[in-house]
Formats: sequence, structure tokens, C-alpha cells
Amino acid sequence: MKVLCERILKEGKCFEGSILKVDKFINHQMDPNLMKQIAVEFIRRYASTEINKIITIEASGIAPAIMMGFLLDLPVVFAKKKTPSTMSDMLITKVFSFTKQREYNIVISKEYLTKEDKVLFVDDFLAYGNAAKGIIDLCAQAGAELVGMGFIIEKAFQHGRSIIEKAGVRCESLAIIESLENCKIKLRR
Amino acid sequence: MKVLCERILKEGKCFEGSILKVDKFINHQMDPNLMKQIAVEFIRRYASTEINKIITIEASGIAPAIMMGFLLDLPVVFAKKKTPSTMSDMLITKVFSFTKQREYNIVISKEYLTKEDKVLFVDDFLAYGNAAKGIIDLCAQAGAELVGMGFIIEKAFQHGRSIIEKAGVRCESLAIIESLENCKIKLRR
Repeated sequence: MKVLCERILKEGKCFEGSILKVDKFINHQMDPNLMKQIAVEFIRRYASTEINKIITIEASGIAPAIMMGFLLDLPVVFAKKKTPSTMSDMLITKVFSFTKQREYNIVISKEYLTKEDKVLFVDDFLAYGNAAKGIIDLCAQAGAELVGMGFIIEKAFQHGRSIIEKAGVRCESLAIIESLENCKIKLRR
Repeated sequence: MKVLCERILKEGKCFEGSILKVDKFINHQMDPNLMKQIAVEFIRRYASTEINKIITIEASGIAPAIMMGFLLDLPVVFAKKKTPSTMSDMLITKVFSFTKQREYNIVISKEYLTKEDKVLFVDDFLAYGNAAKGIIDLCAQAGAELVGMGFIIEKAFQHGRSIIEKAGVRCESLAIIESLENCKIKLRR
């Protein structure tokens, strides 16, 4: 996706530890028009796929997910990183955060992810694939069909894609980073 | 806002401690079309106000905020509840969560909230107004002009509005709950 790649090269910032900061347009400040373009591109790529629900994880996945849901007229569910006191009947799984070097839980109410669902998962980043693994597990627990996963940015050198493809799930990324070595952003053409 | 009030009466659930759960269409599962309608109503109410940025707090405020940003073609910034390791120059304030009975920090990068900004804040709930107070403080720190605050649901009996109005900030809520006594939702007509 050309407009996204240009934006990453222009406004993305590299940090020690292969961190790519895109908080000018995705992660903290968000460009709603870019989010709409991202949603349209996901819709195009999954044009021949039957979907009845979009899922994401709070917080940075919500913007592209709600745009997709709006354009497709589908409900959007975001997995929570904390268990609300009022949620009783839920699906829960552990996710290891490589960046933070600790485990956390993600939860979805059983009411909003069921065996009737054909789910597309959307998120901002694919890195080691730990969050994706968590979502694959939640869908398996629910008996829901995970028809695909879509990421705005994939850090290919962290190999998260292999986890998704091994699970037999289709994976689409709109910008693929080959390397961040020496704090230089190298995109796949 | 009629469609929202009807939805709250139909799908909202009451819990001990004056908790209103709206996780079928706002807080966990989201209805993107309702979010668009909510955004349009905020735009209508603030039609005569000059705004150059929408701000919100992760996570449930992001959906209405991004819809507003999209319709108005304005950037959206969400305050974070955790300090990212890559964020150095930031505005920070403490917020007391009544529900969780503890304090947490909210942060916005100095880069994305400045004295040039005329900011509209959007969030899902107005209760005791502690988050709103935090946002008023962040805007004051930045020298930004906070032109208004918009909430999807206001729990009037928790009096958060008085904090906002005392600060001289306009406050608009799309559905106002008078009481949740005996787990009955009583809306203001």
C-alpha cells in the first residue's frame, strides 16, 4: 500500500531494539483518512471472504477495525487487556509481550465470539505474533472461524507470520518491514 | 439522541454500584453505524465551534473519536494509560478511578497537544468527571484551548458535569442517566 509505505518512510521513527514508532499517524495521533484507506485496502484483499465480525485488541487496533466495520456494516469486538468486573462468562488467554517482557491476559466475552462467527482480525502491528496466537486461541475456544488476519505493519524479521500460517490462517499486511538495522527502515517492495 | 437512548434501554444492563454495562454496542462489541450517528450528533452540537483536533482516552473513546475525525477531516489523539518506553517528552497527569479505587496516569506526547490546538474531547462515559479533570489539566499544561467535551453517556447522579462547567468548559452528553436505583435505568427526557 503505497500511501502507507510513504508515510512510514516519512514519519516513522526507529528506536533501539527494532522498535518502529508510528505515533504521528497510527499509535497515538491517528490520521482518520489514512485509517479509512487502510480499511478499504483490507476490504479489497478479503473481498472474496465471508466475514460477519471484525475483531481487534485494544487500543491501536480499534481505529482501523471500526472503519472496516463501518464500511462493511459489521459489528466490531475489541479484546480487552483487563478483565472488567462485570464480565463473568468469558474466553481468556495469555499473551507474552516481547516488548514489555511479561505476560498479560486478553479476554473476550463468550457473548460476542461464538461458533456462528466468521471473524476477521485486524491490528496495527504483526511482530512476533504473540497477540495473533492469543486471538487464534480465543477463536478456537469459541469455535469461531478465523477467516483471516490483517495488519497495518508487519515486521517480517520477527517472523510472526509463520505462527499464523502454521495455524492455517490467511495473513495480509499492508506494509512489510524487512529490517530496522542501524535504525534504517527497509521496506519490502 | 433518541436512537441511543432506545438502545441503552433495550440493551444496557445494570449492576450493583450504579454500573451501567453497554458492552453490546459501545464498550466491548461496538456498533460502527451507531458510532457514526454519535459522531454526527457531536458535530451538530459543536457546529459553531472552531476545532482542529479531537482527543480521547484509550480504549472506548477511540471509536467515536475516529468517526468524528474522519467526518471532520481532523487528526485524533488518544491519551495513553501507560507510558510508552519510546515517549520522552510528554504531558502527564493523575486520574483517580472511582470504579477501580486507584490512581493511574494518563499521558499525551507534547508533540501532539500544543498551544496551537483547539481541542474537542470525546469519551464514552461521564461519571465523577475524574478523567475529564485529567484532560482539562493536560490541556492547561499544553496551553491548548479545550473548546468542549462530548460524552456518549452521562451518569448525572455522579455529578462529573460540575467539574467541567466549573473549569469553564462546555459539556455535551448524548444520553443522560438520571438514576440507576434498584437497577432500573432512568433516562432524562
